[in-house]
Amino acid sequence: MTSTLLTNIGELVTNDPDRAGPLGAVEDAALVVEGDRIAWVGHAADAPAADAAVDAGGRAVLPGFVDSHSHLVFAGDRAQEFAARMSGTPYAAGGIRTTVAATRAATDEQLLSHAARLVQEMLRQGTTTVEIKSGYGLSVRDEARSLAVARQLTEQTTFLGAHVVPPEYADDPAGYVALVTGPMLEACAPHARWIDVFCETGAFDADQARAVLDAGEAAGLRGRLHANQLGPGPGVRLACERGLLAVDHCTYLDDADVDALRDSGTIATLLPGVEFSTRQPYPDARRLLDAGVRVALASDCNPGSCFTSSIPFCLAMAVREMGMTPAEAVHAVTATAAAALDLDGADGVGRLVPGRRADLVLLDAPTHVHLAYRPGVPLVAGVWQGGRPVV
Amino acid sequence: MTSTLLTNIGELVTNDPDRAGPLGAVEDAALVVEGDRIAWVGHAADAPAADAAVDAGGRAVLPGFVDSHSHLVFAGDRAQEFAARMSGTPYAAGGIRTTVAATRAATDEQLLSHAARLVQEMLRQGTTTVEIKSGYGLSVRDEARSLAVARQLTEQTTFLGAHVVPPEYADDPAGYVALVTGPMLEACAPHARWIDVFCETGAFDADQARAVLDAGEAAGLRGRLHANQLGPGPGVRLACERGLLAVDHCTYLDDADVDALRDSGTIATLLPGVEFSTRQPYPDARRLLDAGVRVALASDCNPGSCFTSSIPFCLAMAVREMGMTPAEAVHAVTATAAAALDLDGADGVGRLVPGRRADLVLLDAPTHVHLAYRPGVPLVAGVWQGGRPVV
Ligand SMILES: [Zn+2]
Ligand SMILES: [Zn+2]
Repeated sequence: MTSTLLTNIGELVTNDPDRAGPLGAVEDAALVVEGDRIAWVGHAADAPAADAAVDAGGRAVLPGFVDSHSHLVFAGDRAQEFAARMSGTPYAAGGIRTTVAATRAATDEQLLSHAARLVQEMLRQGTTTVEIKSGYGLSVRDEARSLAVARQLTEQTTFLGAHVVPPEYADDPAGYVALVTGPMLEACAPHARWIDVFCETGAFDADQARAVLDAGEAAGLRGRLHANQLGPGPGVRLACERGLLAVDHCTYLDDADVDALRDSGTIATLLPGVEFSTRQPYPDARRLLDAGVRVALASDCNPGSCFTSSIPFCLAMAVREMGMTPAEAVHAVTATAAAALDLDGADGVGRLVPGRRADLVLLDAPTHVHLAYRPGVPLVAGVWQGGRPVV
Repeated sequence: MTSTLLTNIGELVTNDPDRAGPLGAVEDAALVVEGDRIAWVGHAADAPAADAAVDAGGRAVLPGFVDSHSHLVFAGDRAQEFAARMSGTPYAAGGIRTTVAATRAATDEQLLSHAARLVQEMLRQGTTTVEIKSGYGLSVRDEARSLAVARQLTEQTTFLGAHVVPPEYADDPAGYVALVTGPMLEACAPHARWIDVFCETGAFDADQARAVLDAGEAAGLRGRLHANQLGPGPGVRLACERGLLAVDHCTYLDDADVDALRDSGTIATLLPGVEFSTRQPYPDARRLLDAGVRVALASDCNPGSCFTSSIPFCLAMAVREMGMTPAEAVHAVTATAAAALDLDGADGVGRLVPGRRADLVLLDAPTHVHLAYRPGVPLVAGVWQGGRPVV
């Protein structure tokens, strides 16, 4: 196996809990990659010999970003709906149905090439691990082929048949839940690792969410939830009761929700791009962090409520609007996001420590602070995935 | 002169007032470039013959962005000050002095290479015309060499000796104004087109601003103002009284200020990156537009209050936070920003009409709406400057 020594690093963010500081940053650092793994991390002066050397040019090096929440399998866009919303039309989850119609009408090849393009766009912005949900098919055939497409792009695939009730089941939501937990799950489970439900007024209530999660877990999938996005609701507490790894959105929380998150260890994944694009109030990350809740950030990239693919943008918004420090926001898109996908194990991602996958971001900046200090600027100057430069 | 036909354009934003719609958009459009100028614009079916053809691949084509307000000649950064501010330390203009010390200590070559790098970064994000101010030298020698550096990068150079009173004049602000209006102006005028004053509590009052503008105009420069950024003040009305082309910031305005802007035709240049990075309330673009005031947007790229170089980011923030439609925001970074630099004449920039400079942005998106709909995503896929592809 070939080894490569990366030298002349500005700031090396390791997220190694055995090192000092919130990000385990190392100064005068070097890093050795061997095959697809990190082999060594430390001070440049102590670096071992390697087969090749790469000069990072003083750039900061961070773990590749982990986007634990996206919806990339769809057709069409909803730019006009966005423009109307910016002129005062409020966001309604029903707009999802526009995308469902376009997605059902698209071929597998169209869905794959479009999703692959978004994955490439994410990669150029530093995202080396992405979770992708279905949820714009909402029929057995269209959910299954959406997940088959997603599986060609990532191992982190999520069955979200319970996104909204499709028009043909408008008068029979119970029938739709039976479909999701029966034939649709059966067709989708082979392509999915996770199962998710949009637990919100206008989508699915707590009992329906429970039924979907029960069925999914019985089929070997692991649960996730969209909850408390548009208003208070039972979703966050349901996620905590069930010991889910993460619950996503968490915009409207009461004190009992925050206590439940803290006590359960369930990660609150905040999606500030959604609040940006729907002009809703941002979730209060500071309150959660101060209460001892683990916070991740993700894009929720989707054509309706948030069509950003940019983790640096989400990070900057979290710093400006949600009370996170730049270091907390970086941790939230690396180590904590990896944990939200159960990828924070010894051979996982999200931290630059020996044994982990060598997924790296090189910034055109000396430190991680610039990701928030220079909002909107495409600072990602290089990306390594599995030990190889890909951007 | 060689002519090039650009075909297969998604949406062509011309800003031609003789065409329908807020952006004079043309569908099924084509455009002919001859030398460094636009030679023809219209429907593809009517396009004249040209020496060469370029397929835009369905991308939207817009006028190159005009950034009418930036401070690119400096050394050092203030990332730590930013991080502290995000943890609760309020912004104070005095931080400028940190950058003054670093700038004075830098060589001309260092200042030029750093500023040139930022201009390139802007170009990659679609900015084809940039104004650059001095203001981190604050001595005769350091202001003059800052402007000489700026002049190597743009014709739109602005002498901002009256940025803040430097430490060595802390006890003698009148002496500093005498320096600015005397020997400093004399040394700087040959390198500058514009003269600017930071008219704000903590910087310069209205009488001082008047003295600086009088002296600058007598030396052949044209006036601009930074005003009403940190609180209400006399700067906006001063700009209107003097008939300045533009007054920049305009965050704190009373009704008399808005009336004065409308009546004078002075452009209000809003700088939302500053409010983002200082966590101040955003200026109310909607109120200004509804009152009939012309609104431009610019970056204010500088190491202290706003280190973004991204016009797409500023545009997206203006839509999210300031009540602008995507079309109004696009107009504000093209035609209106050009007007703010007196470049909206028949051979100017900011509009894609025959005779204007062929400065174009190609978006990786079908319409201009995507600049706000896809915040943070680097959508600029190509840039033409003076009739040639440069990105
Ligand atoms: Zn989602
Ligand atoms: Zn400024």
